[in-house]
Amino acid sequence: MRITLSLLVLTMMNSVFADTMLDTAKQLREDALQSNLAWDIVESLTTEVGPRLAGTVADEQAVAWAQAMLKDAGFDRVWLEPVKFPVWLRHHEKARVVSPYPQPLHISALGYSGSTDGELTAEIVAFAGLAELKSASATEVEGKIVFINQSTDRSIDGSGYGKAVPVRYAGGKLAKEKGAVAVLIRSVGTDSHRFPHTGSSLRQDMPLPAAALSAPDADQLVRMLARKTPITIALDIDVETNAGGQSYNVIGQIDGREKPSEVILVSGHLDSWDLGTGAIDDGAGVAITTAAAQLIGALPQRPRRSVRVVLFANEEQGIWGGKAYAKAHHEELDQHYYASESDFGAGLVWQFDVADEVFLDLAMPLLKPLGIKRGVAASGGGPDIKPLMDMGVSVFRLKQNGLDYFDYHHTADDTLDKINPESLRQNVAAWAVVTYLLAERK
Amino acid sequence: MRITLSLLVLTMMNSVFADTMLDTAKQLREDALQSNLAWDIVESLTTEVGPRLAGTVADEQAVAWAQAMLKDAGFDRVWLEPVKFPVWLRHHEKARVVSPYPQPLHISALGYSGSTDGELTAEIVAFAGLAELKSASATEVEGKIVFINQSTDRSIDGSGYGKAVPVRYAGGKLAKEKGAVAVLIRSVGTDSHRFPHTGSSLRQDMPLPAAALSAPDADQLVRMLARKTPITIALDIDVETNAGGQSYNVIGQIDGREKPSEVILVSGHLDSWDLGTGAIDDGAGVAITTAAAQLIGALPQRPRRSVRVVLFANEEQGIWGGKAYAKAHHEELDQHYYASESDFGAGLVWQFDVADEVFLDLAMPLLKPLGIKRGVAASGGGPDIKPLMDMGVSVFRLKQNGLDYFDYHHTADDTLDKINPESLRQNVAAWAVVTYLLAERK
Repeated sequence: MRITLSLLVLTMMNSVFADTMLDTAKQLREDALQSNLAWDIVESLTTEVGPRLAGTVADEQAVAWAQAMLKDAGFDRVWLEPVKFPVWLRHHEKARVVSPYPQPLHISALGYSGSTDGELTAEIVAFAGLAELKSASATEVEGKIVFINQSTDRSIDGSGYGKAVPVRYAGGKLAKEKGAVAVLIRSVGTDSHRFPHTGSSLRQDMPLPAAALSAPDADQLVRMLARKTPITIALDIDVETNAGGQSYNVIGQIDGREKPSEVILVSGHLDSWDLGTGAIDDGAGVAITTAAAQLIGALPQRPRRSVRVVLFANEEQGIWGGKAYAKAHHEELDQHYYASESDFGAGLVWQFDVADEVFLDLAMPLLKPLGIKRGVAASGGGPDIKPLMDMGVSVFRLKQNGLDYFDYHHTADDTLDKINPESLRQNVAAWAVVTYLLAERK
Repeated sequence: MRITLSLLVLTMMNSVFADTMLDTAKQLREDALQSNLAWDIVESLTTEVGPRLAGTVADEQAVAWAQAMLKDAGFDRVWLEPVKFPVWLRHHEKARVVSPYPQPLHISALGYSGSTDGELTAEIVAFAGLAELKSASATEVEGKIVFINQSTDRSIDGSGYGKAVPVRYAGGKLAKEKGAVAVLIRSVGTDSHRFPHTGSSLRQDMPLPAAALSAPDADQLVRMLARKTPITIALDIDVETNAGGQSYNVIGQIDGREKPSEVILVSGHLDSWDLGTGAIDDGAGVAITTAAAQLIGALPQRPRRSVRVVLFANEEQGIWGGKAYAKAHHEELDQHYYASESDFGAGLVWQFDVADEVFLDLAMPLLKPLGIKRGVAASGGGPDIKPLMDMGVSVFRLKQNGLDYFDYHHTADDTLDKINPESLRQNVAAWAVVTYLLAERK
């Protein structure tokens, strides 16, 4: 009888508690849908700092901005963790068709590209993709500028980018092995605007000059090549890579009330490429995850576990911040309850992926009104989370609609106007619900 | 009785003749809808010549290209008429916010802008439009960079552009009178991409440095200004204007079989700005009107009147070709039966305007299947036609849908991919029908 009564009380208490948790999560969601917190964060970052290539003065300013912003946002603790990497700097890049149809081309040097040391003039040899370049003989390629015209399919989940991006990483290395003097790739992007998309290539000793052409410029070369006359191009790429770069992962934490050492890690990356103001990549992720945590921090009581926002350093040139974090915290990774990064712009979240059916059962009734579908086990948690995932940390993913993400990604056109404030709010609502429930659940 | 019979025969002949003319016009229309002539012309011009700023080597190449193209197209006569103008050349332009939020800005110098002679650093003072600048005191403006943030409304007929463009023409002159050191305008354009729109400003002695900001950059300045701190900008604009520029109106004619001295003048302009490849402005107009005339020239017999294609020189910097043509031909303007220019891209024609109700009755049954509405008296015939219209030449206009025209106009993004081949064919069909009927009618 006493046991039965105890069980009954316990069940009632659990039920009351669960209702409180769900009510709180629901209130968080509604508050997020009315909140300008995320917009204000990304507006401030993109306006006051703007482009913030890792290792530059602007990146230092971004770190100072982030530290001040997290302190103002009411996090219990804010700290920096150093991240070291080689600094790659763009000075200038120019390209022009020399003959037979003289005209300028729009290019952007790729991260870790080499320089041309003045103007480098050579004939181009075109390939449809990496496989075609692989099977080419050295005599076809030697002394030429390799042009790889791999296109990128538009897809909601970025899978088209995944298929195309190896050209950017590996094209230069392969072209060099075959004796090419430089490599030009069709931008890994889905737009047809005159914006070349930058992005990192493989780090190598003595890398080839490597640059992306805008899609209209790649099409222009294809039309010229169809005329069956040799096309000569002059490239002038001036960049440098220096050892000894440093930046910081900027971290803010809301300490858990019961299990403060157990951490829900939510994140974006603070650095951006130098061409745009880094609004969708990744001012949005910084803003979404910070705003979600800030809303949780504003609740009457702290959640059971800690919520840690990590604004990673130098994601763009090789996940340097993510790797440094995993290394620095490798002994506490069993205390990382869940981790995820928002690094796919500000498109609407349409699916929630996590390998925990019980948690899906708990969260989905709160996410469904946001238009979010029940998903499957997360295949990843974002680029900076991969090192943690590889070391066994559980991840979740709030999958966003990325249909237009690769129209702007890594271009000068990645600016604040590309973010829809309503969609940004929906993201914050989803992140607030999931982060809170993970932090609060038993 | 004899008179009655004669009248009957005449009526029958007229009817047979009219049917033949209408049948021919219909066949022209159907042929045009299947034809790649216009696409091939604009593809060739934008690929093989590319950007062709008036007075440059590329412009010379465009003239040679046009002459060869018209000869190949089977025109009875092809000739050049010289056009003289001051040559304006862009060397480079750079802008950056110096303080308090250091970052680059995307600008494009305006035609006939002055240079800064190295870097010019000054505070900006913002105005919503020309009226606000007019009413400003000199003390507000003196020594500063004037920023005019006039936006451009999207409209099917370009009326939004018409309202906004005075800022580009007159902003520099007005700012100079008030003692400003330079002028930056929000691009006269309807897109929100990182493309500044160039375009001509008023020619003046000792003009101010004048440039357009892309819309996202103008928005960025507005956000900075909202923070109520002085914004200092550094401009580096290097351009030059030289006397003694020359180019050519390139003209092809299909000689009329009965009234060869009576001319239907159809036209586009051959020059383009230097930033894009001049596909919509105005490779499209060159291609549409040339292809329409070429189809007429391929008929079994020449039309009654002559069809003259004029590919005007240097429209962009002040309608130099149009003015030169009107001057050179001012004694034969009574022989110019009708004139029009296609200079609004390759959007679908949606209305036919002409102040001739009888001709509208004749043409509309043939245009209606193309989705073209009966219009009113034409308010103009295109920029290069204005000098002729002012001297009494009758004009018509095939009004195009220009909803997206000012997204690309005068930017680096004016490239071939912005032209829809189907829409281009509809344009050729409309121009072929109208041009042929005007040339053939009694």
